[in-house]
Amino acid sequence: MITVSQIAKSLKGEIVGDPDLVVSGVCELENGVEGKISFLSGPSYFRYFNTSKVSVVIVNSDFDLPANGKTLIKVGNPVYGFAQVLELFSERPESPSGIDGTAVIGRASLGRNVTIAPFAVVADDVTLGDGCYIGSGSYVGSKSVLGKNVTLHANVTLYDGVIVGDNVTVDSGTVIGADGFGWVTVEGKHRKIPQIGTVRIGNDVWIGANCTIDRGTFKDTIIGEGTKMDNLIQIGHNASIGKHCLFAAQLGVAGSTTIGDYVTIAGQVGIVDHITIGDRCVIASKTAVFNSLKPGSFVSGIPARDHKSRLRQDVIINRLPDLMKRLRALEAKVIKDRERSNGV
Amino acid sequence: MITVSQIAKSLKGEIVGDPDLVVSGVCELENGVEGKISFLSGPSYFRYFNTSKVSVVIVNSDFDLPANGKTLIKVGNPVYGFAQVLELFSERPESPSGIDGTAVIGRASLGRNVTIAPFAVVADDVTLGDGCYIGSGSYVGSKSVLGKNVTLHANVTLYDGVIVGDNVTVDSGTVIGADGFGWVTVEGKHRKIPQIGTVRIGNDVWIGANCTIDRGTFKDTIIGEGTKMDNLIQIGHNASIGKHCLFAAQLGVAGSTTIGDYVTIAGQVGIVDHITIGDRCVIASKTAVFNSLKPGSFVSGIPARDHKSRLRQDVIINRLPDLMKRLRALEAKVIKDRERSNGV
Amino acid sequence: MITVSQIAKSLKGEIVGDPDLVVSGVCELENGVEGKISFLSGPSYFRYFNTSKVSVVIVNSDFDLPANGKTLIKVGNPVYGFAQVLELFSERPESPSGIDGTAVIGRASLGRNVTIAPFAVVADDVTLGDGCYIGSGSYVGSKSVLGKNVTLHANVTLYDGVIVGDNVTVDSGTVIGADGFGWVTVEGKHRKIPQIGTVRIGNDVWIGANCTIDRGTFKDTIIGEGTKMDNLIQIGHNASIGKHCLFAAQLGVAGSTTIGDYVTIAGQVGIVDHITIGDRCVIASKTAVFNSLKPGSFVSGIPARDHKSRLRQDVIINRLPDLMKRLRALEAKVIKDRERSNGV
Repeated sequence: MITVSQIAKSLKGEIVGDPDLVVSGVCELENGVEGKISFLSGPSYFRYFNTSKVSVVIVNSDFDLPANGKTLIKVGNPVYGFAQVLELFSERPESPSGIDGTAVIGRASLGRNVTIAPFAVVADDVTLGDGCYIGSGSYVGSKSVLGKNVTLHANVTLYDGVIVGDNVTVDSGTVIGADGFGWVTVEGKHRKIPQIGTVRIGNDVWIGANCTIDRGTFKDTIIGEGTKMDNLIQIGHNASIGKHCLFAAQLGVAGSTTIGDYVTIAGQVGIVDHITIGDRCVIASKTAVFNSLKPGSFVSGIPARDHKSRLRQDVIINRLPDLMKRLRALEAKVIKDRERSNGV
Repeated sequence: MITVSQIAKSLKGEIVGDPDLVVSGVCELENGVEGKISFLSGPSYFRYFNTSKVSVVIVNSDFDLPANGKTLIKVGNPVYGFAQVLELFSERPESPSGIDGTAVIGRASLGRNVTIAPFAVVADDVTLGDGCYIGSGSYVGSKSVLGKNVTLHANVTLYDGVIVGDNVTVDSGTVIGADGFGWVTVEGKHRKIPQIGTVRIGNDVWIGANCTIDRGTFKDTIIGEGTKMDNLIQIGHNASIGKHCLFAAQLGVAGSTTIGDYVTIAGQVGIVDHITIGDRCVIASKTAVFNSLKPGSFVSGIPARDHKSRLRQDVIINRLPDLMKRLRALEAKVIKDRERSNGV
Repeated sequence: MITVSQIAKSLKGEIVGDPDLVVSGVCELENGVEGKISFLSGPSYFRYFNTSKVSVVIVNSDFDLPANGKTLIKVGNPVYGFAQVLELFSERPESPSGIDGTAVIGRASLGRNVTIAPFAVVADDVTLGDGCYIGSGSYVGSKSVLGKNVTLHANVTLYDGVIVGDNVTVDSGTVIGADGFGWVTVEGKHRKIPQIGTVRIGNDVWIGANCTIDRGTFKDTIIGEGTKMDNLIQIGHNASIGKHCLFAAQLGVAGSTTIGDYVTIAGQVGIVDHITIGDRCVIASKTAVFNSLKPGSFVSGIPARDHKSRLRQDVIINRLPDLMKRLRALEAKVIKDRERSNGV
C-alpha cells in the first residue's frame, strides 16, 4: 500500500491535495483510472487533465491550473518523477543470483557478487567486475574485460577481447565484436582483411536486443559513455560513437564513421562510412546521411538535408502536378499571345 | 507413392484426367517436370501452362482452357490446394519430444506433452500449456505464461512475464519482452524509465527469426490474434498490433503506435510512434509512415502518401529535367516577344 | 619482433629503405606512429604521406614519389599486402578445439578435427566435415550437411536439412533455414504454406551476425560461392544469390528474387520479390529496387534509378523553389505583356 505522501517523499515533490490517499497503480492520463497515479508531461496533454478519472497527477512545479478534484504532486521534471513512481509499482521478478552449476567458466577473474546463469560460457582470461550478471546461454569470449555491474541478458554473444565499462546493459541476442566487414578483391576472390582491433564500450551504456557491433580493423570500435541504443542496430567496424547519444531501432552506422556526443537518431536511419556527425545533431527517421554534418544539424530525408528546407521541398513536390498545369497553361497563353500579335 | 486420386481426395478437388497417375513431387509451373504436380494461381501464369512439362496442375474450379495432355485437379483455391500438397511431400524430420535431461526448469507448471530441448531454460513460475515445444538454448523468463502448442525454436529469448496465446510459433533468435526504449534526460544524463508492462501475444500468431518485441512501459505491448510477422521486425513498447496482419521483414513500428486488423505491410517499412494505422491498410515496401492512416489506405514513399498520387508524382519527378527545359524555353520566348513588341 | 625484411618476404614485396627496421605494430597513415607500418591505398591518401610519422608504408609497385625518410614496401596490391600484415600482428586468441563434454550430439557423422563447443547441439543425421567448428550454444538441425572447415560462431541456429559448402563462416546470432514467409488467406485466416525446400550455401561464403536466411518453399534458397554478407541481412525464401557478391548490412532480399554474380550492394537496400538483378550490378545504400536490373547497372534511390540520372534529378529537386519562383515571375510577366498589348 503506497500513499501520496510516500510517493511525494521519494520524489521530493510538493503535495497539493490529499497526502493520505492510497495509490493503487499507474495509468495514462488520457485513459485515467480512479485511485491511480499518472503524470502531465507538457501542454499537449492539458486537454486530458480535466476529464481524466485519475486520482493523482505528477505535474511540473509551475503548474497553476485548478486541480479539479485531483491530488497533485509537483516536481521539477514530471517524466522523471513518473519514472521513479514506475519503479515503486514494478512487480518484475528478481533475477536469480550466484553461479549456476551448469555454467562453463574458463580461467577467468571474477569479482564479488557475480551471477552466471545456466549454460553461460565465460572463456579463458576473462575479467568480470563486481556485480556482473551473465544471462543464460550468453557467451563471453576470451580476454574480454567487463567492468562492474555489467548485465548481459540471455543469449548475448561477446567475441574475444571486448572491453566493457561499468553499469552497462546488453539485451538478448546482441552480438559484440564479430569481425568487421573488410575485404580486398584479389583475382576475382574476396580475401579477408583481418580485424585485429576490438570493441570498447563506455560506462552506463545500454544496448538493445539483436544489435551487432563489429570489432575494428586495427583501431577499436568505440561506444561512448552514457549512450543508449535501441534494438536491431548495426555499428560497423572502426566507428566511433560519442557520449550520451540516443539511437532508435534499426539504425545502421557504416565503418569508420565518427558520431559526436548527444546525437539523437530516430529509427531506420542509415549513415555511410568515413564521415563525421557533429555533437548534438538530430537525424529524423529513415534518413540516409551521405555527408558529414556540422554540430547541431537537424536533417531528414534521402539524401539527408536540413529538415526545414526538406519540409519546404516536400510542399513543392506535392504541388508539382499543379506546377505542371500552370506551365502548360502559360505555354498555351504565350503561343496564343504570339499568334494574336502576329495577327493570325 | 501418392496418386492423383489420393491428392484430389485430400484436397476435396475434382479430377480432370488420370486419377491413377503417380505423382513424384512438386515443381514450379514455369520449369515443370514430368511426373510432378504444380499449380496455376492466376491469369499471369497462363502463359506457362501449355509449355510446362508438369503432369498434374491444381487449377481453379472455373478453369476452362484445354488440359493439353495434363491432368487437372480443380479446387476453390489453388494456392491453398498446393499448400496442402506440399505438406504431403514434406520430408522434414520430426522434432524430438520429451524433456531433455540437460534442460534447467524452475518451479514451473508444465502441461501434457511438453517438449523441452537441450540447454533450454524455463525459469520459476512459468506456465507451459499442453504440447509446448521449447527449443534448444531458448530461455523462458519467470512468470511467463504460454498457451497450448506454442513452439519456440532454438535460441529464442522470452523475458519475464510474457503472455503468449495458443498455437503461437516463434522462430530462432527472436527476443520478446526486453525493456522498451524509454529515457528521461536529467542534467545531461539519460535516466531509465522503468518498463513494468509486458508483451501479450494472441492465438495463432507467427513471429519470424531475429525479431524484437519490447515490453510496455506500464500498458502492455500487444500482438493480435492470427497476425504473422516475418524476420528482423522491431515492435516498440506499448505498440498495439491488430489481428490477422501480415508484416514482411525488417519492419519497424515505433512505440505507442496502434495498428488495426488485416493490415498488410511490405518490407523495410518504418512507422513512427504514437500514430494509428486503420484496419486493412496496405503499406508498400520502404515506406516511412509519419502520420495516422485511415482504414483501407494504400500508401507508399517517404513520407508516405496515397500510392496512386505517389505514382503520378514519380512520373512528374521523372519529367523534371524536361519541365526545366520547357520553363527556360518559355522564358526566352517571353523575353523575345517583349523585345519584338518593343520593336527592339 | 618483426622486421621490414620479414614482412617484405611474406608479402613478396620490394623494399625501398631499411630492411632491418623493427616494426612494432600497425597504424593509420593519417595518424601515423613512429616504428609502425601503414599502407597507401590510392591517390586520395597521398596528402597524408609526407606528414605521417609512420616509419614503414606499403605502397603500389608504381609508387614513385620521394620516400621522405620512410621505408617503403612495394607490392602489387597494397590493401591486400596490409591485410597480410594485420595477420602477422594479430594477437587474437586461438579458439579451443575438441568436443566439449557438455555438447549434445545425436547420431551424426563427424569428420576429423571437429570442434564442438559447450552447449552446442548437433541433431541426428547431421554430417560435419573435417575441421568444422560449432560454437557455444549453436544448434545444427537434423539432416544438415556441413562441408570442411565450416565455422559457426556462438549462438548460431541452423534449422534441419541446411546444406553448407566448405570454408564457410557464420557469425553469431544468424538463423539459417527458418520457414519462408508464405501464407494463403482462406476465409479470413492466414494458412501456412509449408516450406519443404532448404537453404544451400556455396563454398567460401561468409555470413555476418544476426542475419536471417529462410528456407525455400519447394525450391532451395541459394547463396552462391564466395559471396560475403555483412550483419542483419534478410534473404527471403526461394531467393537465389550469385557468386562473389558483397552485401553490406541490413539488406533485405524478398522471396524468389535472383541476384547475379559479383553484385555489390550497400547498406539498408531493399529488393522486392520475383525480380532479377544482373551480374556486376552496384546498388547504392538505402535504395529500393522494385524492378529487374540489367547486368552492370548502377542504381540508387527510392524507387531505384540509374545513379547518374538520379544525381541530376536531385540537383533539379534542389532547384525546385527557384523553379517555382521563375514560373511565378513568368506568369506575371505574361499577364503584364498581355495587359500592355491590350492597352490596359
